[in-house]
Amino acid sequence: MASVPSVSYSITVRLEVPAGGKAVSQITHVVENAGGIVTALDVNTAGHETLRIDVTIATRDTEHAESIATALEKIDAVRIHKVSDRTFLMHLGGKIEMQSKVPLRTRDELSMAYTPGVARVSLAIARNPEDVRRLTIKRNSVAVVTDGSAVLGLGNIGPEAALPVMEGKAALFKRFAGIDAWPICLDTQDTDEIVRTVQILAPAFGGINLEDISAPRCFEVEARLRELLDIPVFHDDQHGTAICVLAALTNALRVVGKDIGAVRIAMAGAGAAGSAILRLLLHAGAANVVVCDYKGAVHKGRDDLDDSLRWIADHTNAEGYAGDLRGAVKDADVFIGVSAPGILTGDDIATMNDDAIVFALANPEPEVSPDEAREHAAVVATGRSDYPNQINNVLAFPAVFRGLLDAQASAVTDAMLVAAATALAGVVADEELGPNYIIPSVFHADVVPRVAGAVREAAGGRPRTEV
Amino acid sequence: MASVPSVSYSITVRLEVPAGGKAVSQITHVVENAGGIVTALDVNTAGHETLRIDVTIATRDTEHAESIATALEKIDAVRIHKVSDRTFLMHLGGKIEMQSKVPLRTRDELSMAYTPGVARVSLAIARNPEDVRRLTIKRNSVAVVTDGSAVLGLGNIGPEAALPVMEGKAALFKRFAGIDAWPICLDTQDTDEIVRTVQILAPAFGGINLEDISAPRCFEVEARLRELLDIPVFHDDQHGTAICVLAALTNALRVVGKDIGAVRIAMAGAGAAGSAILRLLLHAGAANVVVCDYKGAVHKGRDDLDDSLRWIADHTNAEGYAGDLRGAVKDADVFIGVSAPGILTGDDIATMNDDAIVFALANPEPEVSPDEAREHAAVVATGRSDYPNQINNVLAFPAVFRGLLDAQASAVTDAMLVAAATALAGVVADEELGPNYIIPSVFHADVVPRVAGAVREAAGGRPRTEV
Repeated sequence: MASVPSVSYSITVRLEVPAGGKAVSQITHVVENAGGIVTALDVNTAGHETLRIDVTIATRDTEHAESIATALEKIDAVRIHKVSDRTFLMHLGGKIEMQSKVPLRTRDELSMAYTPGVARVSLAIARNPEDVRRLTIKRNSVAVVTDGSAVLGLGNIGPEAALPVMEGKAALFKRFAGIDAWPICLDTQDTDEIVRTVQILAPAFGGINLEDISAPRCFEVEARLRELLDIPVFHDDQHGTAICVLAALTNALRVVGKDIGAVRIAMAGAGAAGSAILRLLLHAGAANVVVCDYKGAVHKGRDDLDDSLRWIADHTNAEGYAGDLRGAVKDADVFIGVSAPGILTGDDIATMNDDAIVFALANPEPEVSPDEAREHAAVVATGRSDYPNQINNVLAFPAVFRGLLDAQASAVTDAMLVAAATALAGVVADEELGPNYIIPSVFHADVVPRVAGAVREAAGGRPRTEV
Repeated sequence: MASVPSVSYSITVRLEVPAGGKAVSQITHVVENAGGIVTALDVNTAGHETLRIDVTIATRDTEHAESIATALEKIDAVRIHKVSDRTFLMHLGGKIEMQSKVPLRTRDELSMAYTPGVARVSLAIARNPEDVRRLTIKRNSVAVVTDGSAVLGLGNIGPEAALPVMEGKAALFKRFAGIDAWPICLDTQDTDEIVRTVQILAPAFGGINLEDISAPRCFEVEARLRELLDIPVFHDDQHGTAICVLAALTNALRVVGKDIGAVRIAMAGAGAAGSAILRLLLHAGAANVVVCDYKGAVHKGRDDLDDSLRWIADHTNAEGYAGDLRGAVKDADVFIGVSAPGILTGDDIATMNDDAIVFALANPEPEVSPDEAREHAAVVATGRSDYPNQINNVLAFPAVFRGLLDAQASAVTDAMLVAAATALAGVVADEELGPNYIIPSVFHADVVPRVAGAVREAAGGRPRTEV
C-alpha cells in the first residue's frame, strides 16, 4: 500500500486541550513525529479554560491513523472526543442522488410532467419509438453494471460492497462528461442471468458500462450483450484500460522515436485488461508481442489454453517462446504489466532494449518499483497518482460514452477505441511531450471534448446538437 | 377528455406581426373566440416595422391547439414562425438527472470518492453487510419498475413509451419526499422473468415501486417479490390507490356520520386497484361490500372466477347478490369506482341511501358525471384535479416510501398501509372537514411528515436521524 500519508486515509480528530498551555503547539509536533501530516487545524469552541479543536491529519493507512490518535492522547491534559475518517464521512448516505430537471411547484407543472400531460408524450413514443431518445433520459443515461465479482483489487466482494465503487463511477461520468449514470449491482454471477438481466433492463438506458466482472465471464457477457442490444456495451476494465495504454504507448514511442510495428512488446497479464490491451495493440499495428500469465509465456504448445488464451497464442509469440516473464522481458522494447505486484526487479528492466518503455500498471503496487525501473528505462508509467504518467481509466470512459451517446451509436467498434486512443494521445502537444508527460492529467480540459469528438466521428454521428 | 383548456395542452406560438396595426390586440381576441386562453404574451424582438411575439395558449387538446394556430394565421399580416408544445418542450432530453453529492474538483477528492479511498468503504461493507445502508445510496433509493403493460389509461405501450411516466414518478418521489428513485423499464412481460430480474437488481435499492404492470400478473409479481426480497415492495397502482381511498372514505364517513363497519359499499372494478382497495377496506373494518366487474357482481356462484376473483367472492357479498352494478348501487351508502367511464347516471346515484358517498375514480372520465352525482350524493370524489376531493396517489407513495426507508423496513404490511391512510385522513382537521374537503391537497405541507411518520412507527422503525 501507499508508503506516504494520503488524503484517502485522512482522519479528523476532535480534541479538548487546555486553553493556556503548550498543548496546541504540541499537536502538530506529535502528529509529525508519528509520520502524519496535519492538513487542517480548526478551533471549534474556545472557552476560558479549554479549547475544542478539530485536527485533520493525512495518514498512511488505518493502523497508522490509530497510532497517531493514540500518540495525541498521550499529550498532557489532552482529551480525544471523536475520531472521524474523512473518506467514510464522505460516503455517508451515498455519493450520488437523483434530481428532477423540471419544476414541480404548481398543479400546472405537475400536470405537464406527470398525468395527464405525460400521456401524450408516452403516446408519441409508442407511435414513433425513435422519439425515446428525444423525449426521455435515454439519450444521456448509462447503466453501470457489476456483479461484484472482481471489484478493484478486492476480489469477489459481492454486489452490495461493490456499490460505493459504482456510485463513484457514476459520479465521475457526470463530473467529466455530463452523463447520467446509475449503478446496477446484480445479485447473480451466472453468465446467462447477467446477460438476460442487462438485456431486460436496457430500454431506459443509452449505453451499458460493464464494471468489475471477473474474467473469463466478462468476455462472454460483453460479447453476447453486444449481439443482443442496440445500444453500446463497454467493459471499462478492458476497453477503458486498453484505450489509455494505447494512447500512452503512442506517446512513449514518440518520445523514444520507435514505431509500434517494429517494437518487441512483453506483456504480463492475460485477464480482462491484458487481452483487451493486446487486441487494441494488434489493431493499431503491433506485430511482435509475447504475453505471459502466471505460468509463463502463452504459446501454442501449452495444453492449458482456454478460448481466450488460445486466441492470444494464435495472434502473438510467432517464435513460440516458452519461457518465463523474465526471459520475455529481455531485449524487449516495451513492457506492459496488468498483473501482480513486484514480479520484476530493476535488474530485469536493465536487460531490456535501449530506450525501454515500462508500463507497470498493477495497483496499488506495480509489477516493478517505478523508482528502480526509471534507472534503466526511458519512459515509465504506472497506475498510481504519486508518480508521473498515471494511466487512469477516467481519461477514457466518460469521454468515450459522451461520444457514443452524442452519436446515438448502437455499438462500440475497435475503430472507435483506436480513434479514442489517438485523440487522447494527441492532447499532449509535440512541444509538451517528454518522458514524464506522455499522458494528460484527468483534469486536462481538452481530454473529454477531443476524445468524445473522435469517438462521435468514428461512430458516424452527427455533430452534437442541443435539443 | 378534459373539456376546458388545460396547461397540459399548452402551446407557445411565435408570431410576426406589424408593429403599428391592430394585430397585437386581435391576438387575444382570436384565441378566446377559438376557445383558448392566452396565459402569456412576450414580445421577443421589437423592430420598427414588425414585432416578434411568443404567445402561450392553454388549449383543450391537440386538435384544438391546431385550430387555434390556424385561426391566428388568418389575422391580417400575421405570420406564424413556430408552434411549440409546452408539455413536449418540458420532456426534451428527459425530466431527471443524476447528480454527484460529493465534490470532485481535486485529485484528493477523487482519491476519496473513487480509488484508492473507496476500497476501504467497500471492504467495510463486505465485512459488515448492514453498512450498505449507512455508506451507500441504498438507504434512500427506490427502483421504479414497470414492464409497460398497463401505462396510465394507455394500455400495453411497452417499456420505452412508459419511460416518461416513470421519470415523472421519480421526479415526484424527490419533490415530495426527497427520495432518489430511478426508472427501470423492463423489456419482458413474462412474470417469472420480471420477478427474477427485480430480485437480481435489488441490492442497490432500498425499496421497489412496481408501476403500471397489468393485472393479474401484477399480483403474482408483487407476492413473489415480497417473499424473495428483504426490502419493501409496493405496487402503487394497488396500494397507493387503496391508501388514498381509505383515507378519503374515512373522512367522508366523518362528514356523514356513518361507521365503516355499518355501511353498505358497492364497488366497480376488480382489477389491481379494486382488489387492493377491497383488501384494505376489509382490514379497516368494512363488513358489507359487493364488488362488480364488467360481468356484474362477483359472487361464489359464478363459474368464471380466477384466484383473485375467488378471493373476492369468499370475502364479500355474503348475501350472494348476482345482479348488475346498477342493482348493487341501489340502497348502498358508498360507491367506489375504479373501472370505466360513464357506467352510471345521476339517476342511479339517486337510488343510493341517504347521505351517499360517491368515489368515481376512472380517469380521465369518471364512472358517473361528478356534476350529476353531486345532485344526489352528500360527498363526491374523483381522480380529476378540476373537481374538489381529488384522489391522487401522489398523496401516498412518496410519504409511504419515506417512512419505509427511514425505518429501514424489510417489508410492507397491511398495518402500515392502514396507518398511512389514517394519518392521511388526519391531515384534514375536524374544523376543516366538509363535503368538499375530505382529502388534503398534494401540496399540503403536513402530508409527507405525518404519513411517513405513521408508516415509520408502524414499521417499528427508529425515529429518523440524520447521518
